[in-house]
Amino acid sequence: MLTALAGGVGAARFLRGLVDVVDPDTVTVVVNTGDDDEFHGLWVCPDLDSVTYTLADAHDRERGWGLAGETFVTVDALGRFGDDTWFRLGDRDLATHLHRTERRRAGVPLHRITADIASAWGVRSRLLPMTDDRVATRITARGPDGTTEYAMQEWFVRERAEPVVEAVAFAGAADARPAPGVLEALHDAETIVLCPSNPVISIGPILAVPGIREVLVERRDRVVGVSPIVGGRPVKGPADRLMGPLGIDVSSVGVARAYRDFCSALVIDVRDAADADAVAALGVRPVVTDTLMRDARIAAALARETLAAV
Amino acid sequence: MLTALAGGVGAARFLRGLVDVVDPDTVTVVVNTGDDDEFHGLWVCPDLDSVTYTLADAHDRERGWGLAGETFVTVDALGRFGDDTWFRLGDRDLATHLHRTERRRAGVPLHRITADIASAWGVRSRLLPMTDDRVATRITARGPDGTTEYAMQEWFVRERAEPVVEAVAFAGAADARPAPGVLEALHDAETIVLCPSNPVISIGPILAVPGIREVLVERRDRVVGVSPIVGGRPVKGPADRLMGPLGIDVSSVGVARAYRDFCSALVIDVRDAADADAVAALGVRPVVTDTLMRDARIAAALARETLAAV
Repeated sequence: MLTALAGGVGAARFLRGLVDVVDPDTVTVVVNTGDDDEFHGLWVCPDLDSVTYTLADAHDRERGWGLAGETFVTVDALGRFGDDTWFRLGDRDLATHLHRTERRRAGVPLHRITADIASAWGVRSRLLPMTDDRVATRITARGPDGTTEYAMQEWFVRERAEPVVEAVAFAGAADARPAPGVLEALHDAETIVLCPSNPVISIGPILAVPGIREVLVERRDRVVGVSPIVGGRPVKGPADRLMGPLGIDVSSVGVARAYRDFCSALVIDVRDAADADAVAALGVRPVVTDTLMRDARIAAALARETLAAV
Repeated sequence: MLTALAGGVGAARFLRGLVDVVDPDTVTVVVNTGDDDEFHGLWVCPDLDSVTYTLADAHDRERGWGLAGETFVTVDALGRFGDDTWFRLGDRDLATHLHRTERRRAGVPLHRITADIASAWGVRSRLLPMTDDRVATRITARGPDGTTEYAMQEWFVRERAEPVVEAVAFAGAADARPAPGVLEALHDAETIVLCPSNPVISIGPILAVPGIREVLVERRDRVVGVSPIVGGRPVKGPADRLMGPLGIDVSSVGVARAYRDFCSALVIDVRDAADADAVAALGVRPVVTDTLMRDARIAAALARETLAAV
């Protein structure tokens, strides 16, 4: 049994490779929900959906988010009413949000809804939100009009990650409980993988839910991370704009330092091989391989190397 | 100034003709909301939307409901989750429901949202829901599994109006208040038109909101109705299956009898000219003309005849 901690797109690609090398039924994925937010009254869980759609092979490979062959009729039509349309919800994707929102309003906990959505998409691995409670990643950043607190998608999508980050907080995390099954999945896993996700805003919120970090610390020798840094930069996404300002080096060494208390091995990219010694000096065993998942074969090889590391 | 009471498609067509012969800015339309219901957590107002889309010339003329050129991607995608998809919400139409539902949840009254949606669609006439409160048309009908109470759309769309109607009720009507502006629009109108809509489930719910029928009775000499019956049958819709079982003759005479207390003239179709004497005998002045709105020219001529009747 294997448990992975996952954010969005990078994690989803890694997991897609993983289920090519292990039985998908043996995999539990604990997914960040700090990016979840309401758009047009619908409850959107970007990371859960990215993982679901990718494991279902239904994701758009070119665009990097959402469903393949997606249309955007409804979101464009919302423009008529002056509603914000910067968060591009696709028409097929909307069905997921409508279904989730209606059941959530009826009081069904998120982990139940998540399991049903994954099952409807034919996903065999078990997907768990980190918590059923509301945790909101809030980004304090300095834009042209001064310092403002942004919701994650506001800063990342609407503002194109341009305002300079000063602080990140996970509102609600201190009072959140891990979703049913999360702590058990971490306790029982033979291997725990920290997927190649943003350490600050993807893995960070999961660790902020009381109880989760503690299990990882206990099980440090079974925990392997995959650095999201390739050649000193994030492959995609705004990791550099979040790590730097928060005192984390934008390098695999920075990732190793952030993870060292609960992670015994870190897979780093061949382009960052020079960092291996510094990672090792932090007490984290470096595994150097190709982490740039240009295709399914590389993703599968990366998964194999990752599993072999602990 | 002119105020019309309206249901769905038949009323919408009539109104489209009306605004070709009078200044749209002088028209107020009070619309039935008894058919309103929630689908996938969204608040849908079928009659308000039919009138809005038709006055905006954006309606689908062939299908008879919804928007022209509509797609159904989201509703089809909801099928994956086992959600009901018999109520066909189009993708552009969904934007209207998302917008309305979000604002309604935020506490904005329906008449305000309705005005903004109509304005966003470029509709110059004033659209008012009959009430901001919840009134639900409930149909007790006998189907294969015995007698059941249906929501209007369940009976009409899902069950194709097949269960035999035994009773109709307007839940919540007794406690509903007319939306702001409704009574004033009826008091001040030079002419009040009862559009060619189903007397039982389109005009009926409006009359059931306390205060509205009373104004009509007071102003009876200014009220003209348009019979929805052509050649002894409804043009479209299930009026016959609702009128008969409730003791209303499926004829212009039946309509005249239902309206006589608050309606001084009734426009009836040339194909029902033989009913004119019986209508007159009820104290309602018959106006015989072509009421089958096959095109915009006939709809405009019908509107002209209707206005001339009082």
